[in-house]
This record gives sequence, C-alpha cells and structure tokens, in this order.
Amino acid sequence: MEQAIGHKVWAIAEGFIPSYGNGPAPQFTSHEAACILNASAQDANVKLWIYFSDRDPIGPYKFLVPAKRTKHLRFNDLHEPEAIPLDTDYASLIESDVPIVVQHTRLDSRQAENALISTIAFPVTSSV
Amino acid sequence: MEQAIGHKVWAIAEGFIPSYGNGPAPQFTSHEAACILNASAQDANVKLWIYFSDRDPIGPYKFLVPAKRTKHLRFNDLHEPEAIPLDTDYASLIESDVPIVVQHTRLDSRQAENALISTIAFPVTSSV
Amino acid sequence: MEQAIGHKVWAIAEGFIPSYGNGPAPQFTSHEAACILNASAQDANVKLWIYFSDRDPIGPYKFLVPAKRTKHLRFNDLHEPEAIPLDTDYASLIESDVPIVVQHTRLDSRQAENALISTIAFPVTSSV
Amino acid sequence: MEQAIGHKVWAIAEGFIPSYGNGPAPQFTSHEAACILNASAQDANVKLWIYFSDRDPIGPYKFLVPAKRTKHLRFNDLHEPEAIPLDTDYASLIESDVPIVVQHTRLDSRQAENALISTIAFPVTSSV
Repeated sequence: MEQAIGHKVWAIAEGFIPSYGNGPAPQFTSHEAACILNASAQDANVKLWIYFSDRDPIGPYKFLVPAKRTKHLRFNDLHEPEAIPLDTDYASLIESDVPIVVQHTRLDSRQAENALISTIAFPVTSSV
Repeated sequence: MEQAIGHKVWAIAEGFIPSYGNGPAPQFTSHEAACILNASAQDANVKLWIYFSDRDPIGPYKFLVPAKRTKHLRFNDLHEPEAIPLDTDYASLIESDVPIVVQHTRLDSRQAENALISTIAFPVTSSV
Repeated sequence: MEQAIGHKVWAIAEGFIPSYGNGPAPQFTSHEAACILNASAQDANVKLWIYFSDRDPIGPYKFLVPAKRTKHLRFNDLHEPEAIPLDTDYASLIESDVPIVVQHTRLDSRQAENALISTIAFPVTSSV
Repeated sequence: MEQAIGHKVWAIAEGFIPSYGNGPAPQFTSHEAACILNASAQDANVKLWIYFSDRDPIGPYKFLVPAKRTKHLRFNDLHEPEAIPLDTDYASLIESDVPIVVQHTRLDSRQAENALISTIAFPVTSSV
C-alpha cells in the first residue's frame, strides 16, 4: 500500500513532560511523543507549534518523516527554536505537506513504576 | 497558524475523581482534567455542564481560554456553581463560542504508584 | 443544553476483565466499564452485545440510561442473559434508541498497583 | 445485529514492544495488540503492514477474523513474513475486505507493576 493516509493537520490538547523520573535513560526518562505514520510515497515536511497557558505559541519546529516511514518524535528532543519547558502544561499543533496519522503517548516515570497514556490525536479536517 | 481548529461542543462520558491519593500536592493529587486548545485568534468563552447518574446536571461552569492558549482545566478546581463530588461517577459537556480541541486525562494516585488515562474527547458535530 | 448528542451505535473492540485483583472491592476490583452519557431529554433504551473469539455473540443485554444522566456500566455487573466470562477476550456493540456518547475504561488491579486505560469508543455512523 | 460496522482500513501510528517484562507469561508478557471486531456476517480477510523509522515496511501479514467474532491479535505473535523486532519503534496499517473496528492496546510490564495504554485506532475513510 503506497497511498497517502490521514490528515495534514493534527492537534494534541494534552501536553506535560515531568521533570524527573526513575529507571535507565532514555527508555524510562519521563517523556511525551508524537508518533507519526507517513504511509505515502512522498517525504513529509512537518511543522509543529507548541501552545502554552500564559505566553505566545512557539514554533514552527521542523522535521522530516520520510516516505513509508514512522517517526516517534519525542517532545523532549525538540531544541530549535527552543527546548520545551518541563513541568509545564502545553498543547501542540502539527502540520504536514502530505497526509499523516498522529498518536500521542506519554511515559511518566516520576514514581517507581511507570504510567503510560496514549490516544489518537485530533485530525483537523479544515484546510490551513 | 492563527486559524480556528476543532469543534464548539465536546463530550466526555467518563468522569471520576478519587477522594484520596499518594504523593505531594498538587501534582500527585488524584485529579481529572479537560485539556483545551484554543488555536484561534479569538478568546474562547467556555461553558461546562456536569452530568450525574442520579440527579440533574449542574452548570454551566464558565471560564475563558484566551486566544492562542491552552488551558488544562482541573475538574477538582471547579467550585462555582458547586464543587464536583469525589468518588462519584459523572460525565461532562463542554461548549465554546469558538472552535477548540479537548482531551480528557485522569491521574489516579490512590495506590502508591500513579495510574494515568487520556483520550481525545468526543467532538459533537451537530449545532447547539 | 437539552439536545441529543452523539450516535446511536457504538463499538468497543477491546474487552478483557481480569479474574482477580488487589485492593478493596468494588473500587479496586478489576473491571471494565462503558461510560455512557445521555444528554438528551428522552430516556435511552440501550442494548449491548458481546462478541467472542470462538463462539457466537451473546445479547442483547438491556438497560436504561435516563434522560440527562450518565451511566458508568460495569461489564462485570452484566448477568442477563449470562455473566461475561473473566480472563476472556471480547468486544462489544452498543445500540441506543436516542443518541449517546460512549467511552471505554478498564481498571486492572492484578498487580499491587492498578493500571488504567480509557478511550473514546468507536461511533458508528451507518444506520442499523 | 448482523451488519458490517466500521472501516476497511485502519492505522496505528504508535508501536513498541518492550523486550522484557515481569510476571507470568503470557498474560504479563509485555505486548501490543490490535483488537479487531468483525460484526458482519462475512469472514474478514485481513492484511497488516508494519512501518519502521529506518527501513522499508514489511508485510502483508495475513489472518482471518471470522464473521461475528473478535480477534485480539498480539503483534508479538506475528512471525510470517518475519517477527516484529522488540524495543523498536513501529507503526501499522490494517486492511480488511469487510468493515471492521480496531482498537490498539499495549501492556508494558518492564517494571514490577504493569502499565497499560489503549486507544481507538485511526479509521481511514479513503478507499485503497
């Protein structure tokens, strides 16, 4: 299957990276990820914006998801234009030039046993 | 990106705030949150109703999500018209005057290690 | 808000009730729930079918969700036409005569610390 | 109810099978599952492709979900054309010849207490 699947804009209203954790890094580092599937035959040029409760959004962060590849992007690894602050509520908006599918996951290892969440992100159907 | 994204009405059928927890407050207080993203250029005036199994719904609770901001609203922090009872099944309905995106999250710290859930809320497409 | 919100048919493809747990009953009994919101002004007459991997579906289970009420139905509490077997993969289909919203939740307390999952169920748009 | 419900193509952007776990096998083996409901009166012939971050997708894996049955497919159990590597980011695409409903679940038992995630998969509305 080499078709474009999904949407070009996705939103994740939840976002929070705990500032500490338990267990060996990087697997048990408290983190959030945007898992992205690009099933199309074209590379996806992706832009991401971070929204906060008390200041203007930052972005775009830019990265590539190659054709027929998945990228599990850790928000912890975003550094340009700036690192995402820890212990801070945020939300994110993702825009791609080809359709993609996005799922949101967090591993919270602040306590001795890790906790996990995951949900399909919100697919935006209006054009941008 | 300064566009309105999402829907004006959202529903969350799950709701339960445990009455106790473990770990330092407020981060490890057992709580539920409606994470809301307002990506539009207009402030969002939001109303929220709480539904119960055995009595009439209460609300509206009213709050603002400023333009280009996210608000991770803790249900625990709702007090007007009345606090949400703990250890009680509930559901919620959220209505905004501009499109928003809503994700539901619970942290349950009743046991020594916290458990987390999160899911995209249900976007209502019919008008209200 | 007194309008009908949601869909009349919902599917939950995941289903598994662990046969044991830790902690005081009924809160920490391993269980699954279909959280249902009936925001309409009419009572919802709901039917539920359980699908298995190796035998014909059973049902309908029948119950009521009153107008403007939520019901967090524990699958563990279904007994008529028969109890749902434990430690068994299943799925469920829910049909209502008025639109409802359904969210699926499991508490798994087999180990000392409970684990939780929750997701919006799948809203079926075709008529039945 | 004997109707076909759902979609013929589904995507799951998240995927990661931890390489170890705690607790008795197979229930507490760290695993991922695609929970599939085939509510139709016809058997579903299902194909599944696995996408990676750094190499071409593999598949199709082929399996059957009989009419009016659910199958909770463990990705750990896929062996033909090849086993899915552990501790590796992946995503999946599922195609069926009759409509189905898909939900994604992971049990992560790397630490002493298991963690769980689950979400409805992404239903693809375009034809393939």
